[in-house]
Order: sequence, then structure tokens, then C-alpha cells
Amino acid sequence: MAVVARLTGSDTQKDPNALDKLSKLCAADMARVNQLIVDRMQSDVPLIPELAGHLVAAGGKRLRPLLTLASARLCGYEGDKHIGLAAAVEFIHTATLLHDDVVDESDLRRGRETANAVWGNQASVLVGDFLFSRSFRLMVESESLRVLDILANASAVIAEGEVAQLITANDTATSEEDYLFVIRSKTAALFAAACEVGALVADHSTASTPALEQYGANLGIAFQLVDDYLDYAATDDSFGKGIGDDFREGKITLPVVLAMRRGTDEEHAFWKRTLESCEQQDGDLERAMEILKVREGLADTLIRARGYADTARAALADLPENDYRKALEDVVDFCVERAY
Amino acid sequence: MAVVARLTGSDTQKDPNALDKLSKLCAADMARVNQLIVDRMQSDVPLIPELAGHLVAAGGKRLRPLLTLASARLCGYEGDKHIGLAAAVEFIHTATLLHDDVVDESDLRRGRETANAVWGNQASVLVGDFLFSRSFRLMVESESLRVLDILANASAVIAEGEVAQLITANDTATSEEDYLFVIRSKTAALFAAACEVGALVADHSTASTPALEQYGANLGIAFQLVDDYLDYAATDDSFGKGIGDDFREGKITLPVVLAMRRGTDEEHAFWKRTLESCEQQDGDLERAMEILKVREGLADTLIRARGYADTARAALADLPENDYRKALEDVVDFCVERAY
Repeated sequence: MAVVARLTGSDTQKDPNALDKLSKLCAADMARVNQLIVDRMQSDVPLIPELAGHLVAAGGKRLRPLLTLASARLCGYEGDKHIGLAAAVEFIHTATLLHDDVVDESDLRRGRETANAVWGNQASVLVGDFLFSRSFRLMVESESLRVLDILANASAVIAEGEVAQLITANDTATSEEDYLFVIRSKTAALFAAACEVGALVADHSTASTPALEQYGANLGIAFQLVDDYLDYAATDDSFGKGIGDDFREGKITLPVVLAMRRGTDEEHAFWKRTLESCEQQDGDLERAMEILKVREGLADTLIRARGYADTARAALADLPENDYRKALEDVVDFCVERAY
Repeated sequence: MAVVARLTGSDTQKDPNALDKLSKLCAADMARVNQLIVDRMQSDVPLIPELAGHLVAAGGKRLRPLLTLASARLCGYEGDKHIGLAAAVEFIHTATLLHDDVVDESDLRRGRETANAVWGNQASVLVGDFLFSRSFRLMVESESLRVLDILANASAVIAEGEVAQLITANDTATSEEDYLFVIRSKTAALFAAACEVGALVADHSTASTPALEQYGANLGIAFQLVDDYLDYAATDDSFGKGIGDDFREGKITLPVVLAMRRGTDEEHAFWKRTLESCEQQDGDLERAMEILKVREGLADTLIRARGYADTARAALADLPENDYRKALEDVVDFCVERAY
């Protein structure tokens, strides 16, 4: 079902394991981050580490904390404050996932049962709150008010994006601008903050902090565009979520926004029935995928993703040319190439 | 239905409007806090201030931010950082209420429909996250890492208490110690932090900070004990929540813990049926109230509340004798006297 043809103008073949390469480069730091994550999710209330551990054990790419670690190292940082900040970033992300799953009423994430499916919504909300609070304690240890402000702001923006997504759900009149607001907020804000605080602990005085913030912001948008593409195009094997989740939940993502703009009256009626009225029947997902292909909603979503990816890569231009910079450049490709 | 007889040994008649007196004393500061609350709950996503405003407009006593304001003023503070911290404390409390209502599946709070009943659980979770994040931005403005650490820790402890409450719900084997852990965490931690950060912005060097922390912690326990008492004893007029809410939700509060300890086999079976199996029928709430009276679960809960109240008042002994100290002393009485 996945689009296998490469876009014309695509770069030369890139290592498909760019993320693995980044992980390897940051392995020593990441081991410390993982230990800190385990330490700081402990509580006298055993259900908390049990539930949080379920999500942590599920793994995932740990992309966001890797961005913090690599950003700090790229800027030549030799201290250890980036460890706590990377853990804080992952806690914010984990808390968001826990609350997302409650919000989405999801049963599966990364191929496993979600925490709310196992322990119920109530515990998921509260353990999310716990991790979120613990992330702030980790940030306080950085002793940087600027770092705290950046991450607190990112957290508020994520919540704004999630609420905006709730509002645009089931609304086929959602514009590309509305959609971009949602993904900038719910996804790109944390990517940007993760990079920015990494750069910030390394060096306050240079232009590297805004450069890495821009890198993260654009990478985050590209990442989410590809995610939304994959929801209609991935095979279950390559993609953590179930294919068609967004469709079933009536989420309005860019492929649909573009197809709506270009569609016939009959197609508009189809989207309104399936996504607004949520009256879905057998064969509707296949029909949706067919329309998205014909109207080039999928292909054009990828073209946009590549544009943001190029911008992300360009943001690194003035930074020191070292292994970390190379790894961050390659991660941009990974984020887009996973669509193929 | 309320217990009207005073306990023997009760203090001389106190002003029943001690909280109003405190509010009046802090009126100028509180007006600034209220304005800040309105300012900082704004967002480009209109649903956020709409939903948050519902809860804020519902009023409530604003006891926690008043504690921050009065603690700072008691210590002679003349700056304005206590304004932002009081707003932060109220935001944490409001976020907790929003998530609580999702967790409790409540329909009424302070006599109004809960936000989740109007806008759904999803929006309530996310707007809670938003307010929580905004509270941290407010704290950052205090430029005190110690303040940030205290409030971040309190937030984590609140979540722990709520999870512990989830675990003890429907478990009639809950001990008095288990119960105390829950209320220390879910209620007293924020009372303590609210007072502590008020003292802290005023003066780092004196013993007033630990004294006010102790005042808040003990006041918080007394407050929650009385709340749990009132759930079985209040008339709907005098109490914001619906009477018998805890009973219907199977929450195990101190009156029940004490009555279980002292009850007959037949009474144990009653509690197990109604609170563990949640098989409730007409007349059960009345029967519960009758048992709690006979086994002195209600009266002894109040006696304990008075003990913590006395400890709270005693914690103020070494602090400057001024109007703010007098008002905080009187608030202790208010918290207990509202039971009568």
C-alpha cells in the first residue's frame, strides 16, 4: 500500500539507519538518560512506575532526547546538564502520549496496548501529570531559567495544538493554515525546544541556539507531515500506529485538506460522510486512499515535507562541521525517507 | 443532616467569615492575581479560555492563592512576585480540578456542571495541561529556582496522591495511614507549597519559610478531613459538592476507615457491598450516615481535624504578630468551623 516510487529530485541514496547512527553516536549519553528516566519515574505509589514503565519499555525512537543530546554536543558541550534536559524532554513527550491516548481513546501504540487500555483513563491522566511534574524538577536542576521558560512554553503550546486538533477534527472545512497551526504546536514545538535547550546549555553566546531551534521546528513539521502521510500509506510493519487511525478518528490531516480542495462534489460528500458524520463502512478506507492518490494529497504532502526538511538542513549551515552535525543532517533524511 | 452540636472543648465563638476577612485584607493583591489569571489563560485557541473561564468564573474560595499572598505579606514582603506565584498556585489547583473531574467522572462542581460534562473529557485533559504549563511560566518569572522546585515537587506529589486515591478507592481494607498518605499528597502538599513560596519570595534568610510550610501542610490536612466529613454530613446549601459523592464513587475516607475498624460483621458486609462491589440501593446513603454516626466515624474525623488545625496555628507562633498572621490564624478556625 505504501508509495514506493521516489520523488524526482530526491537526494542520492541515504543511509536508511540514520537514526541508528545518531543513537550510536550518542549511546553513552543516552544510557545515562535512560537510567535517569528509570530513576525519576519511581514513586512510593507502585502503579506509577508500573504504568510509566509500560510506555518507556515500549521503546520508541527516543528521537526528541537524542536531539537535545546531539544539539549540546554539536556545540561542543562537555558538561552533563544535557542529560537531565534530554530526560525532561522525553518525560514531556511521554506525558503527552499518555494524555493523547486518553483523548484519542486509542487501544494501540507502537503495536502494544496503550496504558489507558490496560489501566484505564484515570490512571493515565494522573501518571501523565506526574511525569510532567517530574520533568519540571529535572529542568530546575539545569539551573537555567531560560531553559525552564522554553520548555514550559513548549508544553503550553503542545496543549494548545492538541486542543486545536480536537476542534478541527471532523471539520472538513479545515484549511491548510489551520492544519499547520496544529502540527507546529503539537509536534514541532517540542522538537524545536529539545534542540534549543541542548544548544543553550552548551553556549549562551553564539548564534547556534536560534539555528538549532529552527532546525528542530522545521524537522518537527516534516516529521509530522510524513506521519500523517503514513497513516494512509504505511504498511503496519513499518509504522507504529495502526494504518487508517486518523481516518477512523475523523482527524483532518493535510492529505485530506488537499484532496478536499481538489475534489469533486461526490468526493466532498464522501469526506463529509466519513469524517464529519463519522458514518464509515467497509471499503471506505480503501476509497479514501484511492482519492488521496488521485488528488495527489499524499504525494503533495511528501513534497511539502521535503521542503521543510530542506529548511531544517539549511539551518545547520553555520554550525561547526562535526559528527553531530552530520548525524543531525542525516536524521532529516531519515524522517522523510521513512515514507518510502 | 449536618452535625450541629459543637465538640466539647471547642474554642470560643469565632468569626464565621474568617475567609472573607482574609480576602478583604488581601483584596488589592487578589485583584491583581485575578487579572493575571484572566490574562494568562488567553490563547489563540478560543476553546481554551472559554473552558478555563468556566471554572474560573465558578469562583470558589481562592483559598490557595490567598495563602500565598498572606504568607508573603506576613513576612513583610513589599515586592510583587507573590502576585505571579499566587496565580501559578491557582492554575495548578485549577488544572488538578479539571483532571479530577475527568477522573471522577463528576457532573457537578460548586453546584455547576463540570467542564468535562459540557466540553467532554478530551478538552478538559488538554486545557488542564495548558494551565499547568502556564503555571510554570508564571513561576519562571519569579526567577527563583527554589520556588520552581517547591511547586514542581508539589505538583508531582499531588499526582501521586491522586493515583494512590484511585488505588484505595473501593478497598475497604484501606488503613488510616493509607488515607493520610492520600490527603497529605493530594491536598496538603499544595497548601504547604502555597505558603512556603509566599514566605520564600519575602525572605530567604529567616525561619519563616519552614514555619509557614508547616502551617500550610497541617491546615491542608485539617481542610481535607473536614471536606471528607462534610461529604456525609453537609447540607447541599453549605457545601459545594453534592452530598454523598464520595460514597457513590466508592472513595474510602476517614469516617469510613474508622467505622470499618469499629463495626460489626453486618456493617463490614454493608461497606463491602456498597463501596467495594458498588452495589448501592435506595436508603444506603442514609444507612451509611447512621453507621458513621453510631461508630463515631464523623465525630472522630472532626477531632483529628481540630488536632491538625491546632498544629497549624501553633506553627505561626514565632512569626511577626500582624494582621496577616491574625487572618491566617482565623482561617484555621474557618476551615474547621465550616463543619458546624
